[in-house]
Amino acid sequence: MDEDTRTSDASLAEQLLERMTTDEKIAQLVGFWVDQGDEVVAPMAGEMATSTAYADAVAHGLGHLTRVYGTRPVEPAERARWLWDEQRRLRAETRLGIPALVHEECLTGLAAWKAATFPTPLAWGAAFDPDAVAELGRVIGESMRELGIHQGLAPVLDVIRDPRWGRVDECIGEDPYLVGTVGTAYVRGLQDAGIHATLKHFVGYSASQAGRNHAPVQAGERLIEDVFLPPFEMAVRDGGVRSVMNSYTEIDGIPVAADPRYLTEVLRERWGFDGVVVSDYFAVAFLHSMHAVAADLAEAAELALRAGIDVELPSGDAFLVLAERLRTGTASPDAAALVDRAVLRVLRQKEELGLLAPEAFLDEPPAHVDLDGPQHRAIARKLAEESIVLLANDGVLPLAADAGRIALIGPNADSAEALMGCYSFANHVLAHHPDLPLGFRIPTLREELQSELPDAQIRVETGCAVEGADVSGIPAAVDAARAADVAIVVVGDRAGLFGRGTVGEGNDADSLELPGPQRQLVEAVATTGTPVVLVMLSGRPYALDWALGETGAAAAVLQAFFPGEEGAGAIAGILSGRVSPSGHLPVSLPRSAGAQPYSYLHPILGGPSEITSADPTPLLPFGHGLGYTGFARTELDAQESVVAGDTFTASVRVRNTGDRAGTDLVQLYARDVYASVTRPVAQLLAYRRVPLEAGEEAVVTFRVPTARLAFTGRDRTRIVEPGAVELWVGGSCADRETETAIEIVGAVHVVTAADPRFAESTVQPA
Amino acid sequence: MDEDTRTSDASLAEQLLERMTTDEKIAQLVGFWVDQGDEVVAPMAGEMATSTAYADAVAHGLGHLTRVYGTRPVEPAERARWLWDEQRRLRAETRLGIPALVHEECLTGLAAWKAATFPTPLAWGAAFDPDAVAELGRVIGESMRELGIHQGLAPVLDVIRDPRWGRVDECIGEDPYLVGTVGTAYVRGLQDAGIHATLKHFVGYSASQAGRNHAPVQAGERLIEDVFLPPFEMAVRDGGVRSVMNSYTEIDGIPVAADPRYLTEVLRERWGFDGVVVSDYFAVAFLHSMHAVAADLAEAAELALRAGIDVELPSGDAFLVLAERLRTGTASPDAAALVDRAVLRVLRQKEELGLLAPEAFLDEPPAHVDLDGPQHRAIARKLAEESIVLLANDGVLPLAADAGRIALIGPNADSAEALMGCYSFANHVLAHHPDLPLGFRIPTLREELQSELPDAQIRVETGCAVEGADVSGIPAAVDAARAADVAIVVVGDRAGLFGRGTVGEGNDADSLELPGPQRQLVEAVATTGTPVVLVMLSGRPYALDWALGETGAAAAVLQAFFPGEEGAGAIAGILSGRVSPSGHLPVSLPRSAGAQPYSYLHPILGGPSEITSADPTPLLPFGHGLGYTGFARTELDAQESVVAGDTFTASVRVRNTGDRAGTDLVQLYARDVYASVTRPVAQLLAYRRVPLEAGEEAVVTFRVPTARLAFTGRDRTRIVEPGAVELWVGGSCADRETETAIEIVGAVHVVTAADPRFAESTVQPA
Repeated sequence: MDEDTRTSDASLAEQLLERMTTDEKIAQLVGFWVDQGDEVVAPMAGEMATSTAYADAVAHGLGHLTRVYGTRPVEPAERARWLWDEQRRLRAETRLGIPALVHEECLTGLAAWKAATFPTPLAWGAAFDPDAVAELGRVIGESMRELGIHQGLAPVLDVIRDPRWGRVDECIGEDPYLVGTVGTAYVRGLQDAGIHATLKHFVGYSASQAGRNHAPVQAGERLIEDVFLPPFEMAVRDGGVRSVMNSYTEIDGIPVAADPRYLTEVLRERWGFDGVVVSDYFAVAFLHSMHAVAADLAEAAELALRAGIDVELPSGDAFLVLAERLRTGTASPDAAALVDRAVLRVLRQKEELGLLAPEAFLDEPPAHVDLDGPQHRAIARKLAEESIVLLANDGVLPLAADAGRIALIGPNADSAEALMGCYSFANHVLAHHPDLPLGFRIPTLREELQSELPDAQIRVETGCAVEGADVSGIPAAVDAARAADVAIVVVGDRAGLFGRGTVGEGNDADSLELPGPQRQLVEAVATTGTPVVLVMLSGRPYALDWALGETGAAAAVLQAFFPGEEGAGAIAGILSGRVSPSGHLPVSLPRSAGAQPYSYLHPILGGPSEITSADPTPLLPFGHGLGYTGFARTELDAQESVVAGDTFTASVRVRNTGDRAGTDLVQLYARDVYASVTRPVAQLLAYRRVPLEAGEEAVVTFRVPTARLAFTGRDRTRIVEPGAVELWVGGSCADRETETAIEIVGAVHVVTAADPRFAESTVQPA
Repeated sequence: MDEDTRTSDASLAEQLLERMTTDEKIAQLVGFWVDQGDEVVAPMAGEMATSTAYADAVAHGLGHLTRVYGTRPVEPAERARWLWDEQRRLRAETRLGIPALVHEECLTGLAAWKAATFPTPLAWGAAFDPDAVAELGRVIGESMRELGIHQGLAPVLDVIRDPRWGRVDECIGEDPYLVGTVGTAYVRGLQDAGIHATLKHFVGYSASQAGRNHAPVQAGERLIEDVFLPPFEMAVRDGGVRSVMNSYTEIDGIPVAADPRYLTEVLRERWGFDGVVVSDYFAVAFLHSMHAVAADLAEAAELALRAGIDVELPSGDAFLVLAERLRTGTASPDAAALVDRAVLRVLRQKEELGLLAPEAFLDEPPAHVDLDGPQHRAIARKLAEESIVLLANDGVLPLAADAGRIALIGPNADSAEALMGCYSFANHVLAHHPDLPLGFRIPTLREELQSELPDAQIRVETGCAVEGADVSGIPAAVDAARAADVAIVVVGDRAGLFGRGTVGEGNDADSLELPGPQRQLVEAVATTGTPVVLVMLSGRPYALDWALGETGAAAAVLQAFFPGEEGAGAIAGILSGRVSPSGHLPVSLPRSAGAQPYSYLHPILGGPSEITSADPTPLLPFGHGLGYTGFARTELDAQESVVAGDTFTASVRVRNTGDRAGTDLVQLYARDVYASVTRPVAQLLAYRRVPLEAGEEAVVTFRVPTARLAFTGRDRTRIVEPGAVELWVGGSCADRETETAIEIVGAVHVVTAADPRFAESTVQPA
């Protein structure tokens, strides 16, 4: 880079912009998907992969390097050497000497070979522990920083609305406040490590019709404002996130990628976001090919830029066509200004990241990296342990100290893959290079259970695969169960992408029965009379009515949402009783696919009623989760009234009623009884994990801003209305173990950045 | 009534209003559900039934008499005598002498004992014959007029979006234009007979979450404007309908019953409607009890009146509470004016209906009525014949002239109930008085088939019931099939209300498999190798993948949507070959419940794509229907271009390619290839039934206003945009048998009452 462009740091980006040709500008707005050289990979839309060679593509510079690390099992330090060389080359050999911004997937850990695979976001939600997720983000961010990566494509803040959708394993939960608190913690952790986080997918993606990926969304403004936007608002205003990715979704006929309402008006004008908006992969071109709101790619590019997309990822399929229009003077009159607006944002981001500094890339790439060291393992284990949900237990768990003969059955019993979410490195590589050997080093439940219970006689039978119809292994599984004191049957999903696997991006379901013959396997094993411990390793909740309850097939059910590389050890620890389960459902356990969509956050008529024969009540409610000890919550007490706009206090006494230590999740719910628009019958107001020794008691005090009860009123502004609000604490959203009410006095419109978005809590010994 | 109030006819209503007390006003705005005396029936919400005795309730007059005829099997002429007496008494004994308006259900015929039971609206849709439906409306209206009824609570103009909903049998179809043309024809017919029609349910009801009755609706403004409103607009502007009923629905948090946007702004201000809006039964009180947007019933009443509801049905649960507030001066400041506005509308309606005329009820009630005479039978038969859809046929139909041995199997083979929709008199009575004997006189398929084929040896086996799990009759059915040349298996639904039956109001489904053990019955019969003719008598389309296709269980499938009292004869005629089938699917034949919601009217991403593993493609598409002859559609020809706002012409040649007469349904579809918002991949533009002799050929010419291609643009106004529009004609929406394209030149905003809403067609011999 010329020295003289940096005479005034404040205007470095502006000065660069003024010197740029159209080609140089557009080059800053696009990525190039590198895959160890000139080979280009575009798995989602083969026909759109540009065939441009890398050298030609970067002749005028480059905005983003796409997937430097995440596409093949290659030693990260080796890729880092390539990257440092390439950044130095870009500085030296392109006219303006601007390095590329390097982004990478990092949802369940950095998507690079030998990097740690952490629990999937649905497990973060089940842990209800934002501090742990912040630590997770920080650890991931530090690995990325070591490798010269600048931006991570996470977290996903889509609020789950339909478990048929394959991407629910990438989401944190069904409640916007849970998603917002946990998601913002991840953003803080990642950005504390110097990595720009990217909020996905702004906005509305999770409400696609029938849970089909990319299918149109029908959602009123109130649903969007009150359910889908809040997590993003928290991550922007409180988390200070630096990047946002559009959702693929079309909402009521308008693709978000072509809608200034969200990408500009809400995000920038209302919330004050001043970072960069990147397109989801191929989303700009999809405006032409999939939404058909643009007659060609250049028009698609203009629509996206006008809406507020700054960078086209993974490569410049549409923006590069617009470049041609700009050169020939056939673009829209405002196109050049839109390009400049985006370029300035990108240059400012690069400046902020230090990419334009004279010392950039003068350091040496790391000769050796440890992306899966003790601190990775520690946080992976902690989150795994906290996230596993004991759905049901007739007393069979924890296993007897003398565990005796164990039949360990099922396709997920001895599978490392079964621990990984769809955005793990392995699943991303397999999507692109299905034949590559991965060399997993992740211990399976079989291995960990044997370590955990060295004296137990463990017989392993697969029984059946996760998919397909082959039931030939079931008789052997039944034999094993018959000869055992307990049968641990480990079933669920195999995450993958676009047709590989049973859940994950592109793997949507029109049934919520367990995939393949797995239910048949469990039921066959149950006929032996040997107690069945059902362990779910899945990426979505399934309809387990046949397993639950007194007549169900299972004596106990453990639900793990892809718990990552330490997940098997965590499960083994819970099975043995070394660890008491403390996870809680971040999503309703569904009744059936035909009862979808369903959300716990529904008004009266979204639940069962005498005017419909179809009962959508989930099998188990949001927030449900058992432990090996019991908890009693009593004496919920709140002030009698609070002025709208103020903060109120609610305290509750919680006691460990059992004979061993455990951690309770104290969940505070509210219901606004009458309001000017329909309001949910239950809404999570605040939550807090409380570890308690046997017999120990504590008082948890929540300070809740009344803004937490705000909603979009009839006049389309956010309001806190006067009137009675019921409050309760219990074992789930449906459990009013202790309750009270508070009167809100007066009304206040809540629209400013200063409005509090978080509840605080304190715990005092009682 | 005093003579002096009628000095000026133009202001009769106004003059009456000025003289009224609050009690007299509110009395005009409510109904009273009469059931042969003082007994009050309120089946939907027991706790809300007023316990007021009839005499007290009408002391100040009465707006509506609710269900004078429809609640018990009592001779209609006897009820008419009661009614005439009561109207004379109201004139003589109440202070202002205003008679009551009498409304009644009439969807599948007048809901009165001994009245004809016509095909259900889904069958009207399948017939694609507005003229026949107009005749149906006229015949129904004439019966109502004879009996002193003024207003009929039909038709239902909800556009089907999800077959899980129990009320789909009350709806005409999945396409707004089909619903609008057929529904408007019904309105014209009924109103030509002097009966005020009532549009149900304004608006959005059919999009309830997961098809659950009354469940909240998520719908963007564009979906509402472009799909749900058009049929209502046609019936208001072109049909001149005199009454509208609100939908129970809450859309994005605001109940329609409390929303001036639809009931006042769209209906009255935009469309110029000047009739009366009645509440759906209990809907006003539901604002308090089910939507919780009103803290009490009086507030619910005010919300409803302010939104634009004029009359509370079936009785005055909420409005009568408001009366008390008005008397004590504790109502809202505008409440009295809102009441006056509604009263004036009601009085004007009564005036328009002749209720305020001096000669009203001076005539004698009918001593004898025939509600099911030859003209009723003729139109019932015609619509039944036209509406039955031949879904599949390997040649087994029509049956051989020497039919030989027939096994007639299934729970619907010898059932009169199986021919009736949920709004038949019988089903309404059974909902309220399940023990009453009905005395059906409707011939069953068993009876009609024996008449149709007097020489055939017909053995009848029920096999199983429509519901339950009893499969003990299946072996006998299998035996019968084994001994027969053909097995006709008649299965499907039993319509009913609120828990009685498998479809109908309140009977929603979370599975689209055939109810009960019926699939098991059909598959067991199919194992005999005897060809199976599957006859569906149902109120919703079911997932029949296992029956269709070369390996399916059925050699032929006939789909009848509750075809009414002449339905059995129509089916028998089609089975024998006397009648060639000509019905077409007015709704997609669904793949599964888990694939819902789905509509053929979807943008690209609402269909299958490579980015989701869930394929929503229906088993058979909208518009599909076979006959006993074949048709070839060729040479679709349209002008090259048309100016937006004008009308274009498209003609197509259709030829009967078989060796017998038949009626083709010529369906013209369009696709706007690129637009500013996403547009459906197929849209029905126009249709025409064309009867053709064997070998005969005709040219059908459609004159299509470009307004048929209008949609709600980004600026929220309706627009016809420039650009290419693909056109095709074929055997369904998915069949581009002959195609062309037309270029729309220029753009035009389409917002006035003068915009054409109908396509015209002519047929010329070729």
